Amino acid sequence: MRVRFSETDAMGVANNGAYLAWFEVGRIEYLRELGHSYADVHSGGMDMVVVEAHISYLRPLTFDTTFTIECECVGIRGATFTFGYELRDAEGVCTRGETRHACVDRARMRAVRVPEWLVQAVRETDRYEPVSQLRPPSSERSSRPPDVDA
Amino acid sequence: MRVRFSETDAMGVANNGAYLAWFEVGRIEYLRELGHSYADVHSGGMDMVVVEAHISYLRPLTFDTTFTIECECVGIRGATFTFGYELRDAEGVCTRGETRHACVDRARMRAVRVPEWLVQAVRETDRYEPVSQLRPPSSERSSRPPDVDA
Amino acid sequence: MRVRFSETDAMGVANNGAYLAWFEVGRIEYLRELGHSYADVHSGGMDMVVVEAHISYLRPLTFDTTFTIECECVGIRGATFTFGYELRDAEGVCTRGETRHACVDRARMRAVRVPEWLVQAVRETDRYEPVSQLRPPSSERSSRPPDVDA
Amino acid sequence: MRVRFSETDAMGVANNGAYLAWFEVGRIEYLRELGHSYADVHSGGMDMVVVEAHISYLRPLTFDTTFTIECECVGIRGATFTFGYELRDAEGVCTRGETRHACVDRARMRAVRVPEWLVQAVRETDRYEPVSQLRPPSSERSSRPPDVDA
Repeated sequence: MRVRFSETDAMGVANNGAYLAWFEVGRIEYLRELGHSYADVHSGGMDMVVVEAHISYLRPLTFDTTFTIECECVGIRGATFTFGYELRDAEGVCTRGETRHACVDRARMRAVRVPEWLVQAVRETDRYEPVSQLRPPSSERSSRPPDVDA
Repeated sequence: MRVRFSETDAMGVANNGAYLAWFEVGRIEYLRELGHSYADVHSGGMDMVVVEAHISYLRPLTFDTTFTIECECVGIRGATFTFGYELRDAEGVCTRGETRHACVDRARMRAVRVPEWLVQAVRETDRYEPVSQLRPPSSERSSRPPDVDA
Repeated sequence: MRVRFSETDAMGVANNGAYLAWFEVGRIEYLRELGHSYADVHSGGMDMVVVEAHISYLRPLTFDTTFTIECECVGIRGATFTFGYELRDAEGVCTRGETRHACVDRARMRAVRVPEWLVQAVRETDRYEPVSQLRPPSSERSSRPPDVDA
Repeated sequence: MRVRFSETDAMGVANNGAYLAWFEVGRIEYLRELGHSYADVHSGGMDMVVVEAHISYLRPLTFDTTFTIECECVGIRGATFTFGYELRDAEGVCTRGETRHACVDRARMRAVRVPEWLVQAVRETDRYEPVSQLRPPSSERSSRPPDVDA
């Protein structure tokens, strides 16, 4: 991906709000790689509602910079699950973040269980070390595997 | 403020990214009330760079819903400071969030001390109880006054 | 309204794309003044789909500038109708534009007649002189009243 | 490119404002193919200010749809030039548009001549038939080659 001109602001770098759109692109690609197009998930009547988001802006991104997004499901706890994100430009990691989601049945407007294919996917994940667990980078954290208690 | 149609997404509610633009509006109004237009701050050569953001989406906001933003500086620690936000619609608080900022001198691209007028403003603040300290709502927290150690 | 920081780009002024969101705000307020909330129109099963848009950027708008939006229905022709817009800041008109819309029944996904209340509203309009008729400002045009042939 | 979820609105399709951001991506890629990164143009002190934009939305684009953008400079007239755009999804052309630009020297804030490399590029263009010349598709138009009178 490249930073679009419309995503910059008068500071000359990507506006802080642009990152959540990029995270959204990242998790939709991640789901696609798991074989589950979000368009299908959505049109199938389920939404993955964002209930919480956290972003650590380590370095600004200027217009036209190319970067990659890594996204992975890093934890499932009851009816919610968490995606972790890393943005990298040529110099390395420039942004980290997490979003926590609830699965909602649109017709009944009720929370539903996280789909089994996502639970399975996160069980098989071991290369991602949860960065912030929705806590700031300054927090004390011990390295530990993703939470799966669903 | 009202939720704009362009701020909704195919779920029929405000997209999760729209909130950071609203927080930005909120803190610029807050600075204006303190007598410091951000346009002046910015054109004076200083930027307040966002280094971290946290959002708790408690209830979704649908198109055309009117809501208010409360923003207040809730803590200053060295060269960074934190704004807290609460969005309310007719039914009460629907979103909480925080953003942490560093003051940067644009010409020298270096962090500079938080301006004295902002330190003063936060010292006088006592009605805001820090909601998340950039931690999730589920974290254990004791209620305490804003941090000022600058 | 004020230009939001997130609406500016690295040129230091409002990004060209921000204007269409403002036009959208303008026409929704216009409909509200006519007694027809677009939220009601939309949830009533009809959408006013944009089929064409034209913008003349006369002067750039910088961050935090206050401006007003004037919007009026300036013509109805068969199943489509046209809104005209003028944005003004302290120095006068800075942007003009038009959007042409089709009324669509969402359930059947078919074009439907423009609602009678909108036809009536535009008949009563006489102060707006169509600026561009979706043609560039440089086009030869004679001043004439809004088209109503619905 | 794919339609991002954040680019859709409550109608379930891409919001009308998203297209101008896509056009911007398209013309920046076009300039890059001509060997002129817009980041370089911009940091070299020149901006290509949008003075006019026109969009014909032929068919809506739903979330996650893949599409391509074709952009070409279709005319130069004095100090301004015009880009034409065509968006295509799997079913063919779904959007057409044009943007007219002025070259501005940022330091002196004055219009400057269109760069010779762009004049040259448009002279060599012959496959693009100007779609709307910033007039609506319904206008009478005869097919003619791009204007170059700079």
